[in-house]
Amino acid sequence: MLGEIITIGDELISGRVVDINAWYAAGKLTASGLAVTKVTTVGDDFESVSTALMEAIRHVDFVIVTGGLGSTEDDQTNQIVASALKRPLCLDKEMFDRIQKYVKARDIQISPSFEKLAWMPKDARLINPKGDVCGFTLIENRVRLYFLPGVPEQMRHLMDEFVIPEILLHCDAVPVMRHRMLKVYGLSEPSIAEVLRDLPKKDVILGFYPQFPENRITISLRGEDEPQVESEVDFVEKEIRSLLGPHVFGAGSQTLESVVGETLGQRGLTLSVAESCTGGLISHLLTNVPGSSDYFQGGVTVYSNQSKVDLLGVSPETIRKYGAVSDQAAREMAEGIRRKLKTDISIAVTGVAGPAGGSKEKPVGTVHLGLNSEEKTVSQKYHFWGNRDQNKLNSAMMALDWVRRYLNGHPFLPGL
Amino acid sequence: MLGEIITIGDELISGRVVDINAWYAAGKLTASGLAVTKVTTVGDDFESVSTALMEAIRHVDFVIVTGGLGSTEDDQTNQIVASALKRPLCLDKEMFDRIQKYVKARDIQISPSFEKLAWMPKDARLINPKGDVCGFTLIENRVRLYFLPGVPEQMRHLMDEFVIPEILLHCDAVPVMRHRMLKVYGLSEPSIAEVLRDLPKKDVILGFYPQFPENRITISLRGEDEPQVESEVDFVEKEIRSLLGPHVFGAGSQTLESVVGETLGQRGLTLSVAESCTGGLISHLLTNVPGSSDYFQGGVTVYSNQSKVDLLGVSPETIRKYGAVSDQAAREMAEGIRRKLKTDISIAVTGVAGPAGGSKEKPVGTVHLGLNSEEKTVSQKYHFWGNRDQNKLNSAMMALDWVRRYLNGHPFLPGL
Repeated sequence: MLGEIITIGDELISGRVVDINAWYAAGKLTASGLAVTKVTTVGDDFESVSTALMEAIRHVDFVIVTGGLGSTEDDQTNQIVASALKRPLCLDKEMFDRIQKYVKARDIQISPSFEKLAWMPKDARLINPKGDVCGFTLIENRVRLYFLPGVPEQMRHLMDEFVIPEILLHCDAVPVMRHRMLKVYGLSEPSIAEVLRDLPKKDVILGFYPQFPENRITISLRGEDEPQVESEVDFVEKEIRSLLGPHVFGAGSQTLESVVGETLGQRGLTLSVAESCTGGLISHLLTNVPGSSDYFQGGVTVYSNQSKVDLLGVSPETIRKYGAVSDQAAREMAEGIRRKLKTDISIAVTGVAGPAGGSKEKPVGTVHLGLNSEEKTVSQKYHFWGNRDQNKLNSAMMALDWVRRYLNGHPFLPGL
Repeated sequence: MLGEIITIGDELISGRVVDINAWYAAGKLTASGLAVTKVTTVGDDFESVSTALMEAIRHVDFVIVTGGLGSTEDDQTNQIVASALKRPLCLDKEMFDRIQKYVKARDIQISPSFEKLAWMPKDARLINPKGDVCGFTLIENRVRLYFLPGVPEQMRHLMDEFVIPEILLHCDAVPVMRHRMLKVYGLSEPSIAEVLRDLPKKDVILGFYPQFPENRITISLRGEDEPQVESEVDFVEKEIRSLLGPHVFGAGSQTLESVVGETLGQRGLTLSVAESCTGGLISHLLTNVPGSSDYFQGGVTVYSNQSKVDLLGVSPETIRKYGAVSDQAAREMAEGIRRKLKTDISIAVTGVAGPAGGSKEKPVGTVHLGLNSEEKTVSQKYHFWGNRDQNKLNSAMMALDWVRRYLNGHPFLPGL
């Protein structure tokens, strides 16, 4: 079963809104073993929508269309479909009654714009006729067409509860689809490509996606025989993991912060952070993980020199002698926060995020990390290349990676 | 000048990655007065890419293609273009030399995957030949084709610096296009629609886009006469601002944190933050603004009860009596951080972000804010509706909005 997605909206082709509906529909269909071959986005105009629709009907088994179902004047999907497929618009009694009920309950006047919603192309069937949100579906030349609202939450609900189950019901045999995603930190895309050059990958399709500052590797296979598909994907995943070693920090929906959290939780260890150039980002990432209060005690953002002294007890002498961006300051920051919050491990970051604040000796992107535990204090200097946001993110990721590598006994990534 | 955008990638049609390249390109082209009529997204396969490309060439004046330019094996745009347009691949000497230099500087071996980058369709011209990142362009049947990498930062750089200026250079008459975006916090979309119902909007096109937890309003007008277009847009913007009052916190690329920063900077005031449920997010947002070290002294994330006591001097008695999620705790947190960091203003947030941790009296989404200055301490309770990420974000935005409203003398948004 092949499908296409058509998303309609001037806000999409003018770039005012990111097309997350296409992304969501594509992801859900793919995960269900259905293949999407194309996504087309057009504006709210008659010609473009009809052309895209007629084109899609010629090539695939089902088409998901989102947008243009609302009550405002730019919403005219019903009319366009009726005209393109040469089916007159008919008043849907069920829909009309619901609109009347809705309007009555809210004590507003029924207007032509509301009534419009109840006029659907001939032989169209309401999706979710009993619910608050609906779309419609019809079959044209044996192609199933689904028309859904453009409001993401509404579209998602109908997609998950009605559209996908119905398509799957009409599939003869849904091919087995396996998909894995590995997440890598600390290796560039060309380096990954180089390391994996001679990987025996059988029929598996590999994808490489930089997602700054991570790199993601996808392993996909479609086939008939479930155990075989599964075992081929397993095999390739294992090979990649063995070739890339501890650079692979997670898979699927795991994030570096969730992996760090899971490991801390399993060991019953606690963490605290002291941030300068990352400005709270490490703490924000850690606390995005539900349940992080079990292992994350807290942290400080010490943005001024004085706050490093006042909140962490960093010695003014250290700052005077080596500067706030130094191995020495990073060590004292890590020691300070661990002492204050009595945690098992602490991590500290101090650096120059940019765009200003750089010097010849400490250019923008210079970052020092410090880690402190009962056992030891370590520190190291890095140089990151990027703008302010990227330097913050890369420094935060490196700090989290330090914790992960420390917990797993792997060496830290080399610095400058 | 009409254009189309084609984005290539299995990761896009399978929904693994959101297509922000299409969004970015469409937005930039539209803002430059150029019209995008369609966006097509296809996988990394020969047939789909060629068909989309040949189709686009028949309908528009320029085509932007992103993706498939990297060194890994799924990147084959060069080959597809060469074959679809019947132009042999030729080795680009300039590109080849640059790859060699790159490879030498990093002490890695030149491999076929690297060399591949230098083979381009006949008569293609490198975009940004002197830079670190490039794409290529060629003219086919008088249609300008631009091929850009799929890595968003790279694509954006080339789009802004080379592609758009070049297209504009070849335009006879670009219509005048004015586009404004106003950003609103604290009013729902239906409420905004209600308030603006009778707005005299002339020929201006309004757009409403919720961007959780903000709402954005766009004001667009295309025309021939620049002063007239400008003045109509000015007029509508002024009307909207007057109707929505302090709910409008900024415009264009302004963010709530940049507005807060700008105001603090102008007044020469300093800020500190004490965060519990927002987990460092307020601090992260504030420090995303370049130059924020001028007014932001620092903050703490006090995730455990003990850390609230140890780092801020919150009284254990207060926590025992009222709980860590209470007006009293928020006040003491705000007072504690302002005392520690000696700032003019401090803001504190404590609440239940979820999914766990809620109770009947303090359900998930319960959040207390506290603000402290020389002049006074204020606190208030809110109830936010959302998941963990949304509750963090909404609480952080509300906290920033408190600072903005405090500085501007506007009343805070009402709580529960």
